Amino acid sequence: MNFESILHIPMSNYAYFSDESTINIVLRAKKDDLKKVIIIYGNKYDMRLDGHRFSEEITNKYSDDLYDYFVFRKKLDDTRFGYVFLLSDGENKYYYCESGFSKDYDFSINHTSRFEYPYNFKDDFLNLPSWVKDCVGYQIFPERFDIGDFKKDLSYKTLNTLDTPKSNSFYGGDLQGILNHIDYFLNLGINCIYLNPIFESPSNHKYDTVDYFKIDHHFGDNKLFKEFVNKMHANGIKVILDGVFNHMSDENKIFQDVIKKGKKSKYFNFFIIWGDKIDQENVNYSCFASVKNMPRINTENDEAIEYICKICTYWIKEYDIDGWRLDVSDEISFKCLRKMRNEVKKIKKDAIIIGENWRIPTKYLQGDMLDSVMNYKFYSSIIDYLAYNKINSQDFANQITRNLFYNNMNANYMMMNEVENHDTHRLSTLANNDKQAYILASAITIFYIGMPFFYYGSEIGIDGGYDPLCRRAMIWDKNLWDMKTYKTIKKLISIRKENECLKSGDFKSYSKDDLLYIERELNNKKLTLIINNTADKKLIKLKKEKIIYSYNFQEDHFYNKGFLIISSN
Amino acid sequence: MNFESILHIPMSNYAYFSDESTINIVLRAKKDDLKKVIIIYGNKYDMRLDGHRFSEEITNKYSDDLYDYFVFRKKLDDTRFGYVFLLSDGENKYYYCESGFSKDYDFSINHTSRFEYPYNFKDDFLNLPSWVKDCVGYQIFPERFDIGDFKKDLSYKTLNTLDTPKSNSFYGGDLQGILNHIDYFLNLGINCIYLNPIFESPSNHKYDTVDYFKIDHHFGDNKLFKEFVNKMHANGIKVILDGVFNHMSDENKIFQDVIKKGKKSKYFNFFIIWGDKIDQENVNYSCFASVKNMPRINTENDEAIEYICKICTYWIKEYDIDGWRLDVSDEISFKCLRKMRNEVKKIKKDAIIIGENWRIPTKYLQGDMLDSVMNYKFYSSIIDYLAYNKINSQDFANQITRNLFYNNMNANYMMMNEVENHDTHRLSTLANNDKQAYILASAITIFYIGMPFFYYGSEIGIDGGYDPLCRRAMIWDKNLWDMKTYKTIKKLISIRKENECLKSGDFKSYSKDDLLYIERELNNKKLTLIINNTADKKLIKLKKEKIIYSYNFQEDHFYNKGFLIISSN
Repeated sequence: MNFESILHIPMSNYAYFSDESTINIVLRAKKDDLKKVIIIYGNKYDMRLDGHRFSEEITNKYSDDLYDYFVFRKKLDDTRFGYVFLLSDGENKYYYCESGFSKDYDFSINHTSRFEYPYNFKDDFLNLPSWVKDCVGYQIFPERFDIGDFKKDLSYKTLNTLDTPKSNSFYGGDLQGILNHIDYFLNLGINCIYLNPIFESPSNHKYDTVDYFKIDHHFGDNKLFKEFVNKMHANGIKVILDGVFNHMSDENKIFQDVIKKGKKSKYFNFFIIWGDKIDQENVNYSCFASVKNMPRINTENDEAIEYICKICTYWIKEYDIDGWRLDVSDEISFKCLRKMRNEVKKIKKDAIIIGENWRIPTKYLQGDMLDSVMNYKFYSSIIDYLAYNKINSQDFANQITRNLFYNNMNANYMMMNEVENHDTHRLSTLANNDKQAYILASAITIFYIGMPFFYYGSEIGIDGGYDPLCRRAMIWDKNLWDMKTYKTIKKLISIRKENECLKSGDFKSYSKDDLLYIERELNNKKLTLIINNTADKKLIKLKKEKIIYSYNFQEDHFYNKGFLIISSN
Repeated sequence: MNFESILHIPMSNYAYFSDESTINIVLRAKKDDLKKVIIIYGNKYDMRLDGHRFSEEITNKYSDDLYDYFVFRKKLDDTRFGYVFLLSDGENKYYYCESGFSKDYDFSINHTSRFEYPYNFKDDFLNLPSWVKDCVGYQIFPERFDIGDFKKDLSYKTLNTLDTPKSNSFYGGDLQGILNHIDYFLNLGINCIYLNPIFESPSNHKYDTVDYFKIDHHFGDNKLFKEFVNKMHANGIKVILDGVFNHMSDENKIFQDVIKKGKKSKYFNFFIIWGDKIDQENVNYSCFASVKNMPRINTENDEAIEYICKICTYWIKEYDIDGWRLDVSDEISFKCLRKMRNEVKKIKKDAIIIGENWRIPTKYLQGDMLDSVMNYKFYSSIIDYLAYNKINSQDFANQITRNLFYNNMNANYMMMNEVENHDTHRLSTLANNDKQAYILASAITIFYIGMPFFYYGSEIGIDGGYDPLCRRAMIWDKNLWDMKTYKTIKKLISIRKENECLKSGDFKSYSKDDLLYIERELNNKKLTLIINNTADKKLIKLKKEKIIYSYNFQEDHFYNKGFLIISSN
């Protein structure tokens, strides 16, 4: 038995509750090493007694290139849970507990060595809001979506619809311009929008907030935003805002007060300053990356935390928004994230908090800080597979399976799965201007666990490289749309929405004949996505399966960049 | 390279800050597999640029039977830390990052795959109070230590000094009886005492609290306790109390109120009750284990949490105690532990919070809940080695090394290392009445990382099995003392106190010729403990080393249950 590859971490993403009473246990082992995994469990106070232990083989198995993951799930009456594994590699059997591996195991004295999840409280695990599994999201960069208010002074406008944007361009987009397109969202199948920042700010991206309580005057006003959320809700669309709390604009009156008054400012401790007063020339304060006009907020200072919480709860209480996406959330203090979560969930339990964490986010998704992150691990696999062609379908299948074991399953369901956004190239551009890469990526997103999110415009064929190029204006002249892309994306979304198995079914990914397979199955209803990302034409014989949708596929011939969705229930 | 055994978990006990600016990185690999481990690191914003990356071989290595642990420690100017490993098994070299293993690595686009600790805040890591490394503790079961107040009504007394206690025995011990022995503590070398519960309660153990704000009337009163802490502090002795917040006595007026008023009681939600009123016959409420006169507190209820915080801060603010040991802390909600920690640390940053967690406590020791636990993983290895003889010195050396990697190093320094207590057999009794097992265990405790704690009475030869037998009265008649044991323990404590390397030096444990070796080294001063737990007499040749202390050792002959402490600086 390959002992040194066996991994179980108590009270972690390998042992957690997914609701008040359901325990989830994961054991990781070297691929193909273990032939049988049995879990022996019971109430931790009683399991030393014969007749109070239960035994079950764990047959639910996932695999990647290195590991098998055995997953046990059980609804418990009493959550004071003790357990031990009994492992077999076909030749030898070993008990596995906190003390390691042993041939024999004396349950009567196992209280110093068994694994335990000692008790579950209902506020101590990562709760899954009920709407999340149904969510199909759409990200909008508001300055570039549409102009709704032509009465405003548009003299600041420097960008026309088909122009290539520069970093300081202004197009004139606003909230009314988004509101005018509710039909577009409904028609596409969208039920959640995430807006890049909309609070008062001098820039077009508005990641340098000047007033956290005021809608940017180019975008509209607070009254319009109230109407905005109401109308979205009336149409079944949730609204997620972008909260920029790692830093603010140096023009923000809070920072200006510190510039003026130095240590005498009541906001002095809102920032991390090395010295008694701000020296903007020499940047003697912590700032975002090394951008001196974006001073970082000291997010472990109690007053600053109070201020951030006030903002977060204000927009929920007064405007009923459905969640926050937090900019640079991995540089915000744990203390701040915990407090903010408490305050937000107290007033709206189903609100979601999504972090901009580019790294493996395990630490943040335990139930005390974030609900979810922008799924950059998924993004990373997508671009390596479809844009860079750095990995093949087997590698990709492995990576997206492994990705599910960095976090608990509720976190996976809440992931914001995007293949591009305002901080990246558009995928088609990254893939040497191949729109089909974007379409395949979208099909995978529809089949993956988590919330599919679409970045505005790509669905109608807009392309563009890194910022500012990925922030082109939305095109509303249908004659300029790439209708094949649009129809495919719309169809994919409808397939997601109509099939429960894509929302909450079991997941499996693998490769066969260089094709990628992703299966989702629920109550004997199974949908399979098959992707051909090779340069070759592939022959594929389908038997009883029914083709739900095909792309670049004709009579058993599966062309390059084609995909198939088949049903086999 | 044995890929599947390589383990690194970002932002965990494998990647953490130990002070405001010192990052600690651990990489675990199959034993003897890796010949060279290099870490390539830098500021995460700059390290894509050549000239902004640093490279260092990690030579600091620990080993157990299965794994090598490579430990990197570095003081940083900017804590926005990115890193990648470069591993060599002697034949092949691989980069290792979040995406796995690769032959090449392009640092210019590694922002989706490198490991990161994005930023460190000073309140977000587990802080180490400065007194902890010097701590030598002593646990007292107050009812059994000594009677100081003979004026009180002692009619409840049922136990004399040398009697065998029963579960309902009362000896009459009190706070004055402890105060009277400050000289004893000082003489032995103790600078911290941990008292089992002392609040008003009907039982002798007082784990069923009736009034959390009142010293038990058999033990004294609040005024005496004030004097108690003051005198202890004046003599350099810290005082840690036992907080029982998982449950209370059913005689507590809070529970009584619920019994009387049912749902109309303002304390109804302090408990977990299935129904509208308490049914003690059928126990329709959550209780400790299945003890119906100990109803569990609903420690995720906000009012209950407030109440617990009030208790915890009261005894610090008013009486200046130095910390809490929390009973059944693994069944208290995370929410409660976090709030309590915040409140306690706000008023006394150096107070310590020690949990009664029998299991691997990783989850609890991240800086947001507990500081430390009663080190039952250590205890478990000790009894298997010295009492049950189930494991040999090699196994033991492996286990106590592995034990250090379940948690971050600050947590290890704060561990309450005890080889017995009020909930276990005394070690000598468990070891078939072999006092030498206790002495060897104490020597190991003195050499291990963490706070050595001694359970009252064993140092003078008191023995006893499981509760109530482990709670005998302390003996004050020196004629009845086991002086050899007493002198050995006293000497061991003095060696700990006089040698900085035992408090904060590097640690190494291994086995040679069936002997256990533990080395501690600091600034080229090294002490080594050698233990003979075999049945054999061993010959051992010491060269330049100086013997600091020996036990069952004479002229190169190392007898069964002997130990040696040698210095080799």
